[in-house]
Amino acid sequence: MSTCLLCLVLLFFSVVAEATYSPGGFHHLSSLRQKKKASKSKPELPFETRYFPQNLDHFSFTPESYKVFHQKYLINSRFWRKGGPIFVYTGNEGDIDWFASNTGFMSDIAPKFRALLVFIEHRFYGESTPIRKKSHKSAETLGYLNSQQALADFAILIRSLKQNLSSEASPVVVFGGSYGGMLAAWFRLKYPHIAIGALASSAPILHFDNIVPLTSFYDAVSQDFKDASMNCFKVIKRSWEELDAVSTKKNGLQELSKKFRTCKGLQSRYSASNWLSGAFVYTAMVNYPTAANFMAPLPGYPVEEMCKIIDGFPRGSSNLDRAFAAASLYYNYSGSEKCFEMEQQTDDHGLNGWQYQACTEMVMPMSCSNQSMLPPYDNDYEAFEEQCKSRYGVKPRPHWITTEFGGMRIETVLKRFGSNIIFSNGLQDPWSRGGVLKNISSSIVALVTKKGAHHADLRAATKGDPEWLKEQRTQEVAIIEKWISEYYRDLRGEN
Amino acid sequence: MSTCLLCLVLLFFSVVAEATYSPGGFHHLSSLRQKKKASKSKPELPFETRYFPQNLDHFSFTPESYKVFHQKYLINSRFWRKGGPIFVYTGNEGDIDWFASNTGFMSDIAPKFRALLVFIEHRFYGESTPIRKKSHKSAETLGYLNSQQALADFAILIRSLKQNLSSEASPVVVFGGSYGGMLAAWFRLKYPHIAIGALASSAPILHFDNIVPLTSFYDAVSQDFKDASMNCFKVIKRSWEELDAVSTKKNGLQELSKKFRTCKGLQSRYSASNWLSGAFVYTAMVNYPTAANFMAPLPGYPVEEMCKIIDGFPRGSSNLDRAFAAASLYYNYSGSEKCFEMEQQTDDHGLNGWQYQACTEMVMPMSCSNQSMLPPYDNDYEAFEEQCKSRYGVKPRPHWITTEFGGMRIETVLKRFGSNIIFSNGLQDPWSRGGVLKNISSSIVALVTKKGAHHADLRAATKGDPEWLKEQRTQEVAIIEKWISEYYRDLRGEN
Repeated sequence: MSTCLLCLVLLFFSVVAEATYSPGGFHHLSSLRQKKKASKSKPELPFETRYFPQNLDHFSFTPESYKVFHQKYLINSRFWRKGGPIFVYTGNEGDIDWFASNTGFMSDIAPKFRALLVFIEHRFYGESTPIRKKSHKSAETLGYLNSQQALADFAILIRSLKQNLSSEASPVVVFGGSYGGMLAAWFRLKYPHIAIGALASSAPILHFDNIVPLTSFYDAVSQDFKDASMNCFKVIKRSWEELDAVSTKKNGLQELSKKFRTCKGLQSRYSASNWLSGAFVYTAMVNYPTAANFMAPLPGYPVEEMCKIIDGFPRGSSNLDRAFAAASLYYNYSGSEKCFEMEQQTDDHGLNGWQYQACTEMVMPMSCSNQSMLPPYDNDYEAFEEQCKSRYGVKPRPHWITTEFGGMRIETVLKRFGSNIIFSNGLQDPWSRGGVLKNISSSIVALVTKKGAHHADLRAATKGDPEWLKEQRTQEVAIIEKWISEYYRDLRGEN
Repeated sequence: MSTCLLCLVLLFFSVVAEATYSPGGFHHLSSLRQKKKASKSKPELPFETRYFPQNLDHFSFTPESYKVFHQKYLINSRFWRKGGPIFVYTGNEGDIDWFASNTGFMSDIAPKFRALLVFIEHRFYGESTPIRKKSHKSAETLGYLNSQQALADFAILIRSLKQNLSSEASPVVVFGGSYGGMLAAWFRLKYPHIAIGALASSAPILHFDNIVPLTSFYDAVSQDFKDASMNCFKVIKRSWEELDAVSTKKNGLQELSKKFRTCKGLQSRYSASNWLSGAFVYTAMVNYPTAANFMAPLPGYPVEEMCKIIDGFPRGSSNLDRAFAAASLYYNYSGSEKCFEMEQQTDDHGLNGWQYQACTEMVMPMSCSNQSMLPPYDNDYEAFEEQCKSRYGVKPRPHWITTEFGGMRIETVLKRFGSNIIFSNGLQDPWSRGGVLKNISSSIVALVTKKGAHHADLRAATKGDPEWLKEQRTQEVAIIEKWISEYYRDLRGEN
């Protein structure tokens, strides 16, 4: 019995981990994109693609450390004049093109600032992998994939770029969302001599080492659905029992496969459970006020739309049917899917850098309480560690991020240290619970919107944007303007 | 001819590099100590010696990175009570016992603060070497010797120590001198969540990447001697010509060996030249107001003493004889040396971590102008790089330190970022030219003494200490007191 329990926890964990340990949710996306190539939109602005040679290891001088890989970056100098500001996106766990096309805010404000735009891809993602994909399982080759190396990459690339542009006095502002936002904030903290400020959007830098309660992420997902409709929340919460009941019947998986319109017969009920959970979690994250296509094409306020579907069923309908219909909004808003590939997602693991990062440094412990809408589970660190060992041959370093970057008592520390960071968060985004939600000092500030979602502010402005979103962006522009003019005054010796 | 010139530059460089690239001057000391075991004094306070397991590499997750070495640290809890401050010395390039016994200031002020004292040895030095000495030549094993890894070691050790002491809210102040001072300042900048402030004494953090003029170090040495006696300066400046004249005569090296009382016949005149230079450079560094035994046992104001020796010779005496007599003060103040081992020093290279650090990250370019008292030489980066390649198989990364830690326009950067650093410098110390000599902000301050030498403030108080030194230490105590009380007020939520 206890063994089975462990299996359950492990399996659930392994897949939920996928849904939860990836702030940007790149895993699901990569699966989705395999199915829907059309949804990969090209950056709207004409970026030039360049490649920069980087050492494999900046923090050692072994022969291996000098191996060179080519880091991709995108650049747009249309609005820039020499000496003007440089806006750098600190790339996170995915193709940089994708982040560029979902960070229209930077392009929107570049003309006003006459800023150079640079989007730097994170090492070991997209085209910037020092190793070929089949090596992605090996601890030896993947060992150099981590945030500190990534920050050093950014520092070296930016410095070299400024030198090549003969514009070394240009102020650099870094931008990032999700893990990219964590990197932006950390970059300002660790490399203040390179970036004068950071806009860290939806950056859950406190989601480590038990700083925030372990249940906070799923509590927030649940709250989003409760806010939309209490009935909706209850239906989803009850659906898991029905799913278990169906799938454990004789020929239950077959019945479930049919119900869920899977392309292939389900091998495990947890695939269906994770498929459902993923839809709710990611929809909560991208609960944007207008139609968007970040993780998947979705209408505005998709959580409300899901709940409308659920609440629209006739009285007495099956909770599971309703939950499936709601989840289908996420996976099939366009209506073009004939069937769903529920077990294909787990095949991507080996290609996936974030899983490795989650198994080494990005250890963000979570659990799901009984009060949550999703199947409850406890944080089982030992099982997690075991899984990381068997998958990658690595032992996680669960306290490393807070040792390297801090996080405990962050208000006390940063009240007396550092400056020029905006932590922006939308409370709809479950990751916001791990973010900085209160002003820390006069220049380390929190911009919080009640109805905002995962780095909504970084998206391009659209005609339908609500006032609170416009206002948030206006505040961000004003703060960045202040940083830049202060910098130029300092440079001219006027302060 | 040009080849010979290169030889000269190279050979001179290789040995002068030894004298100059080591802020703490550990190389010469290690040679000296082989001769004079008695001069190795034990720490005065009863420190307990402990060892802490550290991963070999904090910035990668390769299998190699998990290899463990044991880092030595000294601890004294006599004055401490739980919750009270922790004073940590961020060890530099040598045995931690040596630094502990030359940093009496921390022990002097511990009772007042009821502070715990901790001296942490730097990785790859003293007993804290992950590898055996014979491996010290290999780039593969030495590759993990660098400042960022050392800072991470400190962070991990301090955090673990506080946890074990159940005193996680204790404020930590870091102290360091010379390279240790650089580490202290950088530690506060990179790990503000671990240290509330840093006293960085004689930390030449600007001696990189041409931030300060290349000639500044030797200009400062020369100035010290000029200040003592213009005649003394001239005598030393002229002595090199005589040394060349003697040594290039037939049987010149033999004559020089006799004149210089060498234990073995000299193989090269550069050994004699470097021996002399070393004496003047190191004496300038440790030109303390009272008798001390840091690099070597010396009287108070030893530069003046050297110049008294030089000026005391009868008119018309040989400049070289005078220079030799002056240098003998440094090498033989006790008068116990029967002969001098001038060529033994170069045998230590393989054991010497600093040489490796100088060949990788700690690239502090220097040259010696015609105006200097010492033999002039140009900075020859190519030759230096070549030498590093042949000696350690590594290619230096000359811009890395300023990329990682900054330095360019430091006033502008730190005026708007960071807090609680004291940069203390004594202008007698030639390294002071690469230090922060002006206040940057209200809490990043420079304490400069005209007559101070290499981290004089960190030495234990003695009865003969002049007022300016007492005053400097009083200021340091007052500032540290302010940091600590501010921290406790923050902790109690009173600010």
